[in-house]
Amino acid sequence: MDTKAFQDQYPDDYAHCFGCGRLNPVGFHLKSYWDGEETVCRHTPDPQYTGGYPGFLYGGLIASLIDCHAAGTAAAAKAREDGKPISRFVTASLKVDYHSPTPINTELEIRGKVIEIKGRKVIVELQVNADGVTRATGTVVMVQLKGQ
Amino acid sequence: MDTKAFQDQYPDDYAHCFGCGRLNPVGFHLKSYWDGEETVCRHTPDPQYTGGYPGFLYGGLIASLIDCHAAGTAAAAKAREDGKPISRFVTASLKVDYHSPTPINTELEIRGKVIEIKGRKVIVELQVNADGVTRATGTVVMVQLKGQ
Repeated sequence: MDTKAFQDQYPDDYAHCFGCGRLNPVGFHLKSYWDGEETVCRHTPDPQYTGGYPGFLYGGLIASLIDCHAAGTAAAAKAREDGKPISRFVTASLKVDYHSPTPINTELEIRGKVIEIKGRKVIVELQVNADGVTRATGTVVMVQLKGQ
Repeated sequence: MDTKAFQDQYPDDYAHCFGCGRLNPVGFHLKSYWDGEETVCRHTPDPQYTGGYPGFLYGGLIASLIDCHAAGTAAAAKAREDGKPISRFVTASLKVDYHSPTPINTELEIRGKVIEIKGRKVIVELQVNADGVTRATGTVVMVQLKGQ
């Protein structure tokens, strides 16, 4: 894996995201990396992020992890294709399918794979794995911000 | 509008959600109500939930608000149809389209409309409005938990 996370290469003006911004004083500070042709992010959520019943993770948090890792994956893939520094993408659409409950107090592996790069648009497919089981999958359409 | 929020009628065992659980010691404590044939939830996010650049809201938080309000809407609609107390639903799939940036330090209105009730499955369409503009829309498939 590369040693520098995608999010640590975002321009300062775009590094404030609650989920993955290195300049947000709180938040999750998610870090995403290349892992071969896929990308990976590992995160153990704080136990306060429970879903409706204790022991399982909040679906909104799972969507948040997918969203941030998709943004990072899109940025890294576009930068590699263009031979340019990483830029910032925003979410056009986010689809998450929840397959089975996700335990808390467990490290999650979020994996991303680029499906399409077309101009400023990048489509990413993602998995959220816990204890070796895919708990959720996602498809995210990301768009590169203009004027960076 | 009804005076008692849907989330305040969830069984105690299922009231721990970070987004909307009255028994989660932290979290957003979202409250959803009937408003005619639609449902509504109003929430002003904490400014720490910024997206990539300051002044605009984190897409993951928008997905979270849609998720919780969809669960509440599904539960209330199913309870009304069956003539039974409110029960707990979980998310099968969540789709969010982001139309324009959502400002922070602004009260959001999340509106829900039930599209289909079929057995334990309820489909809800949603809007997130800020300053009179629809910033995001969503479609969520909710499934009633067994054994409540």
